[in-house]
Amino acid sequence: MARIVMKFGGTSMAGTERIRRVANIVRKQAALKPDGTRDEVAVVVSAMAGETDRLVNFCREANALYDPAEYDVVVASGEQVTSGLLALTLQSLGCKARSWLGWQLPVHTIEAHAKARIEDIDSEALLESLGRGEIAVIPGFQGLSGDGRITTLGRGGSDTSAVAVAAAIGADRCDIYTDVDGVYTTDPRIVAKARKLKAVTYEEMLELASVGAKVLQTRSVGLAMKEGVRVQVLSSFVDDNATPADALPGTMIVSEEEMNELVEKGEMERQHVTGIAHDKNEAKIILTRVPDRPGAVANIFEPLAKASINVDMIIQNVGRDKGETDVTFTVPQADLARAQALLEDQRGNIGFNRIITDSKIAKISVVGVGMKSHAGVASNMFRALAERGINIQAITTSEIKVSVLIDEDETELAVRVLHTAYGLDAKDEAA
Amino acid sequence: MARIVMKFGGTSMAGTERIRRVANIVRKQAALKPDGTRDEVAVVVSAMAGETDRLVNFCREANALYDPAEYDVVVASGEQVTSGLLALTLQSLGCKARSWLGWQLPVHTIEAHAKARIEDIDSEALLESLGRGEIAVIPGFQGLSGDGRITTLGRGGSDTSAVAVAAAIGADRCDIYTDVDGVYTTDPRIVAKARKLKAVTYEEMLELASVGAKVLQTRSVGLAMKEGVRVQVLSSFVDDNATPADALPGTMIVSEEEMNELVEKGEMERQHVTGIAHDKNEAKIILTRVPDRPGAVANIFEPLAKASINVDMIIQNVGRDKGETDVTFTVPQADLARAQALLEDQRGNIGFNRIITDSKIAKISVVGVGMKSHAGVASNMFRALAERGINIQAITTSEIKVSVLIDEDETELAVRVLHTAYGLDAKDEAA
Repeated sequence: MARIVMKFGGTSMAGTERIRRVANIVRKQAALKPDGTRDEVAVVVSAMAGETDRLVNFCREANALYDPAEYDVVVASGEQVTSGLLALTLQSLGCKARSWLGWQLPVHTIEAHAKARIEDIDSEALLESLGRGEIAVIPGFQGLSGDGRITTLGRGGSDTSAVAVAAAIGADRCDIYTDVDGVYTTDPRIVAKARKLKAVTYEEMLELASVGAKVLQTRSVGLAMKEGVRVQVLSSFVDDNATPADALPGTMIVSEEEMNELVEKGEMERQHVTGIAHDKNEAKIILTRVPDRPGAVANIFEPLAKASINVDMIIQNVGRDKGETDVTFTVPQADLARAQALLEDQRGNIGFNRIITDSKIAKISVVGVGMKSHAGVASNMFRALAERGINIQAITTSEIKVSVLIDEDETELAVRVLHTAYGLDAKDEAA
Repeated sequence: MARIVMKFGGTSMAGTERIRRVANIVRKQAALKPDGTRDEVAVVVSAMAGETDRLVNFCREANALYDPAEYDVVVASGEQVTSGLLALTLQSLGCKARSWLGWQLPVHTIEAHAKARIEDIDSEALLESLGRGEIAVIPGFQGLSGDGRITTLGRGGSDTSAVAVAAAIGADRCDIYTDVDGVYTTDPRIVAKARKLKAVTYEEMLELASVGAKVLQTRSVGLAMKEGVRVQVLSSFVDDNATPADALPGTMIVSEEEMNELVEKGEMERQHVTGIAHDKNEAKIILTRVPDRPGAVANIFEPLAKASINVDMIIQNVGRDKGETDVTFTVPQADLARAQALLEDQRGNIGFNRIITDSKIAKISVVGVGMKSHAGVASNMFRALAERGINIQAITTSEIKVSVLIDEDETELAVRVLHTAYGLDAKDEAA
């Protein structure tokens, strides 16, 4: 017997027919095993694809500056509907099942409406229900504030709900079913030879998630790492006759220790680079002729930080004239206009000459825990890109990641070149 | 200052634009008055028109024999959405407002999911909120069972929610806003000279509601009578500049005592008949040659009662042969097939010859508290119908109602004839 949390996203829950497919997967996970035991199964669900957008639009139409407490009342209904429907569908397949809404467990969160964080999940009633052989269906994304109101975790929060439930009930595994069947060495739409990874470490997944491999919400990976929850990413679009988690394994997200064991057992190859990610959602800002004196840079980035605009890469060039410098940095494209307006406001304070912006850029990152013990990954990257004439506009590095900023038009070329350069191409598909 | 409950149905809440109209009506009700006071206002809302049907269909698709506890989780979301949206819209108009879901107040109900009854509403937090000048927005139709799960009251339950809230907070009035502007002497689509009634008694409204004048849910009228809640029916489709409850009064539903006062003050005319209702949703069943012995009739109606099929009119004719009788009765059209199957099952037990069914019938009722003290209302009815050649198939009476069953094709004619016969035609519109 194992205790399993399964999570299904909005595409998997889009309509009663798809919910029936999900129910079939869940039923098989909860079925009697040859050894006479059953898994205890809790399922965390998203709203039907498109439903949250519909509800958010209603809120915007009702009140452009909406009260996030009432926004939460409206948008949390999407997951309430799918959790009831999945429980009903499981019952129609002969399973014992019931829904547990965020306020019923409850899932305690901080009071930051529309962007709450889970503090604690009461697991007592849930564990009793699982012990009675009931499948628990839990709406993701929602919780209860200290003053008894509905909260939501922010978009994509259902992954985090699933990991938090898994941590609360001490689950053996948290299976995140998505519309892809695992984590790949890179985007398979760009590189046909991309390979599905059997396992990645939490740290690698964090870097991959934060640079645009949209398989899992970043926060959920951080929580899984902190709580030591074993997460598996796998596809919900499987053959109805397969026992999915066993027959079609996805990608396990594990600790570095577990990864080392897998390598020692020969189940994973040791690679310096695990994957290549790309992100086209940033924009570049250049401030020219900023005075080169103490405090000048702080004058640029403090107002942006106060406005909650995340600055990613920063480069300071020596300017043409003495005592002046050009400052280049990136912000999310969605915040570009706001950042530009803020900087114009601060022109006198900062003392720059011109603002130049460019949203036709891409960030390419190579990620791998193997880098920690292997030098030369970054220089290999620069050489491989230079050989194809791809110009690097900026560089940042972390312990397990090297990222470069390039022209957006060269994204696909750069990803392919690097995928080959680091030996990630699938061998059986090689020409 | 008054304490007012306002209730808006699904047509009034259908979309953010209509919700804005509703918010404007609520804002005016809650606005500062010339005497420096404000009304305390609680608003009870339905789901957007069509939304509950959409959710019910999802449940049916998920599980034809759905678990009513999970059905309630799904369908209660419709009112959750509109209550959040109305609170947001009121805020955008500068009002203080917040939503209170059924489980938050809570609205305690019995555990009969999908057809729960309200037992008690905790009014403490609600009264505090009203006292702080906040408009309370409460989803109708939903409550909380003793074991902490969502319940719903059955279709049309929002009227009952509104009356129950009004009773719980001791409201001065419960205004039910609908797509009609009051209760009429009969259906204005049939009789152009139908008049809007300034007031009807609870008893009259109960009879009118139960025979097909679909202005208010029957159960809500019964509750209002029991709790002495003054109910007003009025239209939400009013000019945005009107102060609706005052400028465009609807129909007050009051006790017989209050009605007598209105008559004495000359505000109401005393009529023997208050209104004419029609109902085309019944079907007639005739069982021929039922043995005329003790217990035979019980054998017919017990199985129907056990299946929760409401039998309305019953007539027992003397049969052609001695010791046998024909039994005629009506059931809701929606239950006709089920009733027929049940009776066929019991054929041996009941011992009838044939089942004849007819769904092309209509029930016409004349209603009025004035009948209590005035004889001859029924015989006037029979004569008026006979003069126009309308055949009466069955008759039932109560203290304030006479109903007859006729051919469905003669519905409109019968209603018009009776409206004129009882002097209900509007005088200013007479030719």
